[in-house]
Amino acid sequence: MFKRIQTLLTQKETHKKVTIRGWIRTRRDTGSFSFLEVNDGSCLANLQVIADKDLPNYEEDVSKLSAGCSVVVAGTLQESPAKGQDVELQAESVEVVGWADPESYPLQKKRHSLEFLRSISHLRPRTNALGAVTRVRSRLSFAVHSFFQKRDFAQVHTPIITTSDCEGAGEVFQIRASGETKEKPFFGQQAGLTVSGQLQAEVYALSLGQVYTFGPTFRAENSNTSRHLAEFWMVEPEMAFCDLDCNIELATDLLKFVLQDVLANCVEDLALFDTFVEKGLVKKLQDVVNKEFVHITYTEAVDQLSMLKGTFEYPVEWGVDLQSEHERYLSEILYKCPVIVTDYPASIKPFYMRLNDDEKTVAAMDILVPGIGEIVGGSQREERLDVLTRRMNEAGIDLEEYGWYLDLRRYGTVPHAGFGLGFERLVQFTTGMKNIREVIPFPRTPGFAPC
Amino acid sequence: MFKRIQTLLTQKETHKKVTIRGWIRTRRDTGSFSFLEVNDGSCLANLQVIADKDLPNYEEDVSKLSAGCSVVVAGTLQESPAKGQDVELQAESVEVVGWADPESYPLQKKRHSLEFLRSISHLRPRTNALGAVTRVRSRLSFAVHSFFQKRDFAQVHTPIITTSDCEGAGEVFQIRASGETKEKPFFGQQAGLTVSGQLQAEVYALSLGQVYTFGPTFRAENSNTSRHLAEFWMVEPEMAFCDLDCNIELATDLLKFVLQDVLANCVEDLALFDTFVEKGLVKKLQDVVNKEFVHITYTEAVDQLSMLKGTFEYPVEWGVDLQSEHERYLSEILYKCPVIVTDYPASIKPFYMRLNDDEKTVAAMDILVPGIGEIVGGSQREERLDVLTRRMNEAGIDLEEYGWYLDLRRYGTVPHAGFGLGFERLVQFTTGMKNIREVIPFPRTPGFAPC
Repeated sequence: MFKRIQTLLTQKETHKKVTIRGWIRTRRDTGSFSFLEVNDGSCLANLQVIADKDLPNYEEDVSKLSAGCSVVVAGTLQESPAKGQDVELQAESVEVVGWADPESYPLQKKRHSLEFLRSISHLRPRTNALGAVTRVRSRLSFAVHSFFQKRDFAQVHTPIITTSDCEGAGEVFQIRASGETKEKPFFGQQAGLTVSGQLQAEVYALSLGQVYTFGPTFRAENSNTSRHLAEFWMVEPEMAFCDLDCNIELATDLLKFVLQDVLANCVEDLALFDTFVEKGLVKKLQDVVNKEFVHITYTEAVDQLSMLKGTFEYPVEWGVDLQSEHERYLSEILYKCPVIVTDYPASIKPFYMRLNDDEKTVAAMDILVPGIGEIVGGSQREERLDVLTRRMNEAGIDLEEYGWYLDLRRYGTVPHAGFGLGFERLVQFTTGMKNIREVIPFPRTPGFAPC
Repeated sequence: MFKRIQTLLTQKETHKKVTIRGWIRTRRDTGSFSFLEVNDGSCLANLQVIADKDLPNYEEDVSKLSAGCSVVVAGTLQESPAKGQDVELQAESVEVVGWADPESYPLQKKRHSLEFLRSISHLRPRTNALGAVTRVRSRLSFAVHSFFQKRDFAQVHTPIITTSDCEGAGEVFQIRASGETKEKPFFGQQAGLTVSGQLQAEVYALSLGQVYTFGPTFRAENSNTSRHLAEFWMVEPEMAFCDLDCNIELATDLLKFVLQDVLANCVEDLALFDTFVEKGLVKKLQDVVNKEFVHITYTEAVDQLSMLKGTFEYPVEWGVDLQSEHERYLSEILYKCPVIVTDYPASIKPFYMRLNDDEKTVAAMDILVPGIGEIVGGSQREERLDVLTRRMNEAGIDLEEYGWYLDLRRYGTVPHAGFGLGFERLVQFTTGMKNIREVIPFPRTPGFAPC
């Protein structure tokens, strides 16, 4: 009976006849048999196969197996005398399904650099590290859905192609159908790729009460750094009748929930990252789950940071935005835990964030984590029509174009709030991967979009 | 204590003090009090609020409430003497949070046409029908994730921006960063929006074993019909060591699972559709869950259809693709159930479908359902390097550009298969909605992309 390797390694039912299907990682020959390490992607671990030299196709096939070959192996599961594994498979037949010429197959036994693996993004999930990233990413994704489903949030697929632009026109990819002309655009007006589903999520929060989006977003920025992608996924909940405190509570609960979930369900993969990528990773994740987050205001953060003369490339003073180096200092060095920073200056935040009574700050909140900096950014939204209109005018935004958004304040407006969680940053934080290009299957960056 | 209306209507805990937050659907005045119907989006049903005229703000506020106003009501839940509801809320306070001028608010009590509602896509989820569609869509989406998670599939976020084009260049939206020139494209070469995640999902199936994608896909077709969108969501599983039969089994199980899930979890919303949108809807869905699907070959389908002279706009003969009218005839009239059609002519199917031994047909499969036609389309993939290369050459595809795809056959190739499930078609089938524009939050069609 066909079984996945994860099942066999977990259930350890020896003396059973089973069939496995997977890819050779290594072959090692001894006097009377070969050891085959077979991986099928269901887990990090390989299953060790014992292939005796008296198998009818030993000379012709088994003795030629190399990394990457695909095989179907039938046999009996038995206790393994070797260290590091409880069971192994005594092969009764080894069928080679597909070869992988060792002269040209790029993934040989040696460790490859992550930079090299990026150049073969169609093969890199076959490695231990990238396979583990894929499983952890998938589990995190499902944990996000489960969290919101348990709390009765509706998922809303906000549009990818949009004629509204939440943040500012410069960074938007524009789209074009072939045959489209400036005079006759496909959608009747210039359209681009979304930078955030928030504004449209607000539409649904103000009818369904509590919703979330989880979809791709885009930035046409020419940033070639380890922190930026042109295409990345965002989780964006939006809640009616919710203020900044309620927003902070939800974001905190979400982070703790999804990390607890992967800690429970991705033990083996996280251990790999803890050993080879970031020492102490598991402890770091456990701390986030178990400890309270620190909460300070932007003003308090600036007070702390501006005392540290000469520490930063970019000096800090009230009114300037925090840079990644400041965010990381707060969470990595000063508090050594996630830090919630609230009440940023209105002048550095978008028009839709709710103006505080001081008229200088807005009800914004970022959550900063060690090694990453900002992982969550959110706010209570401006629900007062007059204040919103004033802020939009100040920002030079065309009120007519955003008539639909203003309607949400004209008709049954309510206090509401939401945030965006950068999904790749979450995967980075969870796996310890330093470069964001390692945590998305096919990274898109300036000059680079293979496959 | 704050509660969502769905919870109150389900738990029916009378004599409890509760607070609700939502929007007024209607107000009706009697001698000594007003009935307020309040909806908070948690479910289709409203909660009836009894607001006595001796409330301190009755004259000033309550007596002026109209459709769309947002309110916070505190009071005691009590048994309702009225028909059609078990409980109602005796208000102790009614706070008006946001007004909705009845002179200008577009959603008045009367029934609005779906066409009209499309013109106010930022308000339409506040209606019964579109609210119900949103909840059912969300539940279907979670059911899809749950199905694959239970079966140990990894979710893979395949790229939206792509330089590969699975089907043919004409229908692809091209993207452009501002400042980009023909000589210096942002990604180093012309990029467009994906039409399918399949080819990239194959990369991950051949390393993780079994994966799925669930993301937006795009067509720049100038089709203004009730069946087409420029942006829509697809579910695309891909499985290593899987042939056409295994593919059919998975697709069948998936459809039955997600429909069973909504039948169990969206009872009230489905009843609305059964009453007002498609009589017999629930029975139709139950039949899909409980009955076996019919399986015929393309050749058998053509035999059946070509006997019906004069029935169709497009005549049928062996070698031409089935049209929507043919697909619907097979499932609606002839078999009255989902129909699996396999083994289509190679000449009308893409290069990646596995060539059958007859060299004339490919191991393709479509699933057709009543009212929709094709809801699933899939195939076993061509895993033989020589055959694939030949087919690509015949189709005029640049082998070098698809070198990464050919590598999957060069190194450890295995039989594999997968399919695409059009998510909006699934939501249409589940809700009975005739026009696809009703089942996605913000439809994108030629000339139309508001919000």
